[in-house]
Amino acid sequence: MYGEIIAIGDELISGRVLNTTSTFVAYKLTLAGYSIRRITVIGDNVSDIKECLLASLKRSDFLIVTGGLGATEDDITNEAVASALGLELEVRQELVKKIEECGHRCDVAEGPYLEKMATVPKGAEILDIDSYAAGYLLRYEGKVLFFLPGVPSQLKSHVEKQVIPRLQKLLGPGQLVLYKIFKIFGLGETEINKKLEFIETNFSDVKIGYYPNFPEIHVAVTVTGSREKNNIEEIFESACSAIRQTLDIDIVAEDQDSLETVLGNLLLDKKSALAVAESCTGGLVGQRITSVSGSSGWFECGAVTYSNKAKVKILGVSPKIIEQHGAVSEQTAHEMVEGVMRLGSVPFGLSLTGIAGPTGGTPEKPVGTVFIGMGTPEKIFVERFLFPGDRQEVRLLASETALDWLRRYLKYGTDIPGYRPAKRLDQGH
Amino acid sequence: MYGEIIAIGDELISGRVLNTTSTFVAYKLTLAGYSIRRITVIGDNVSDIKECLLASLKRSDFLIVTGGLGATEDDITNEAVASALGLELEVRQELVKKIEECGHRCDVAEGPYLEKMATVPKGAEILDIDSYAAGYLLRYEGKVLFFLPGVPSQLKSHVEKQVIPRLQKLLGPGQLVLYKIFKIFGLGETEINKKLEFIETNFSDVKIGYYPNFPEIHVAVTVTGSREKNNIEEIFESACSAIRQTLDIDIVAEDQDSLETVLGNLLLDKKSALAVAESCTGGLVGQRITSVSGSSGWFECGAVTYSNKAKVKILGVSPKIIEQHGAVSEQTAHEMVEGVMRLGSVPFGLSLTGIAGPTGGTPEKPVGTVFIGMGTPEKIFVERFLFPGDRQEVRLLASETALDWLRRYLKYGTDIPGYRPAKRLDQGH
Repeated sequence: MYGEIIAIGDELISGRVLNTTSTFVAYKLTLAGYSIRRITVIGDNVSDIKECLLASLKRSDFLIVTGGLGATEDDITNEAVASALGLELEVRQELVKKIEECGHRCDVAEGPYLEKMATVPKGAEILDIDSYAAGYLLRYEGKVLFFLPGVPSQLKSHVEKQVIPRLQKLLGPGQLVLYKIFKIFGLGETEINKKLEFIETNFSDVKIGYYPNFPEIHVAVTVTGSREKNNIEEIFESACSAIRQTLDIDIVAEDQDSLETVLGNLLLDKKSALAVAESCTGGLVGQRITSVSGSSGWFECGAVTYSNKAKVKILGVSPKIIEQHGAVSEQTAHEMVEGVMRLGSVPFGLSLTGIAGPTGGTPEKPVGTVFIGMGTPEKIFVERFLFPGDRQEVRLLASETALDWLRRYLKYGTDIPGYRPAKRLDQGH
Repeated sequence: MYGEIIAIGDELISGRVLNTTSTFVAYKLTLAGYSIRRITVIGDNVSDIKECLLASLKRSDFLIVTGGLGATEDDITNEAVASALGLELEVRQELVKKIEECGHRCDVAEGPYLEKMATVPKGAEILDIDSYAAGYLLRYEGKVLFFLPGVPSQLKSHVEKQVIPRLQKLLGPGQLVLYKIFKIFGLGETEINKKLEFIETNFSDVKIGYYPNFPEIHVAVTVTGSREKNNIEEIFESACSAIRQTLDIDIVAEDQDSLETVLGNLLLDKKSALAVAESCTGGLVGQRITSVSGSSGWFECGAVTYSNKAKVKILGVSPKIIEQHGAVSEQTAHEMVEGVMRLGSVPFGLSLTGIAGPTGGTPEKPVGTVFIGMGTPEKIFVERFLFPGDRQEVRLLASETALDWLRRYLKYGTDIPGYRPAKRLDQGH
């Protein structure tokens, strides 16, 4: 059983907007066991949409069409569908009512806008009457066609709550897909590939994919099979265990977890807390930590001491140290982490001071040089790193390295001699 | 003259990897005046690739095919192309030599890998012999076909340095494309649409697109025409001026500029500086500000006071104020911004304290409630906002609102009575 996705919009074929919605739909359907065979992106052009719809219907069992359902002139999906499938269009009163209800919120509740938003092909089954951007389903010659709004936030809930349950009802359950992501930081893609080569040799049903997700590499493990074959789960679990044993400390997180959530849980387990002093990352480490709901349980405070004056005044860094060694130095990173731990009265601290670029580098301290300090109840560590890439990449690598360093320390109880800051920069193909 | 893009890869149709390369190719070609009519994504499957190639060749003048040129087993683009167009494959010695030269760097310089990487269809013109992932060009029945590596970093330089110059040579210069982006915050999409309706009426050659780029709406103005018609630039400039007059203060930035760079330039012009006190945003505002190279010229420091203790200790917020009014209150936001301005000895400050969710809301202060303080040499302002969305959306809206509030203040010299926090939440379709 195969499906296709058709994404409609001039903004997509002109490259002005990244097509995240098709990727989202494909991902969710793949995990639900439905194969996607093709994704086609076309512009707001009735004849192209018609041709594409009819060709896709010949090849596939179901179609997911996104975009072009809005109220403005360039929204022509309904017109094209009606023409392609020989259907009439009609204004649906339940949609009119719904849109009027949310009028003040959605600002389309006026004359022609309202009428256009409430128009669908005859025979369409509205997917979710509680959403004013409803989406609908058509059945045509045994095929199932979904039409969804192109706006990511509206589309996402439709896919999970409407499309997948209806596909299961109409076409039967998809294949069984077992799927896990290991998030790796500290090893390059080819390095991981070599270490895991034995998996696909030993487990013939297991497929491994390598997906750079800067600054991490995500390793996806998939086993697909019929629901009847009942040793599939066993194979999957064995493969995952083997990967866990092999990559071990370099696995930052699995599945929905992230470096931030894993680090948070480690601190929570110790009933401990963290404070952060940032210079070149400017708040990025704090922002990443606090992106996790509940981080107030283990994050005390951050100091974004961008100027030297702020380093002295807020963190108590000695002006002499800055004068003698520079703001980007081992000594300054040391005093920054000491200062922020004192300020927050916490047992753990991180500090970052460096040159994110593109300007500010010197032969001695080129762009990408970052000193990271890690304060623990036992000792303060400082390491010098040289990160490659542009300003944002250097900042991301620095924040990831700092958070990951503390994760390794908390989980493995030592400074990790095997931790190789230079190696971790190899993220290439 | 039309072209199509075909992207090949199981990782793309399964949704595991976002298809950024097609968007990049489409964007570059559109700006060079070549229209892209369709983007098709297919898996690593010879018969699908063949069918797709032949169908696209019937419709279009040129094709850009990306992916499937690597050394591993699932790289089958060459095989499919040769079969579809009736060509033989051959190992090219100049490619063998090149790959051997960079052997230690590219880790494919071994036996079967090397041979596969050096194989192309007969008649292929190698695009760039200095890159080991070369890419090639084929001419077939008057059509121009480019085959490019799918790895974004390799593809990007090929598109700019090889594909566009060759298209210009082979098919003639593209149309003249004049293009500008206005970045809007504070108005919803349909609201902007209504305000700009007159543009497309008055300037028939001007096309306006609306692209939500959360939390901003980006308005793209495009004029496409032949290079001979020489009033096109005039029309484009008139339309842009009319948009600038109409949207005025709600235009946050244009083209490559961002809210952060515009705000930075306003502060630099005043030789002034800013400090930021963040609670619910956890460093996001500081991170956004310092994403701009040179922000040290106008950004002094930030305090990420996530706990109440930190608000008291670092910013000098009165414990009584927190006890009486809560950490999320007008009074706390007021003392936070005062505190951080004192700490940084700067004339401007921003503070944010709120409930980003998903937990922590109360009937009185539901999730999304954020108090933003703006300190200026004249006065401290505090406003209460209620932002919709999930944790990350609330945080993004709060950071954007704070930065934009200061931009408006600096540029227009007043508290802006026309500034409508409630309205700006309407970002829907």
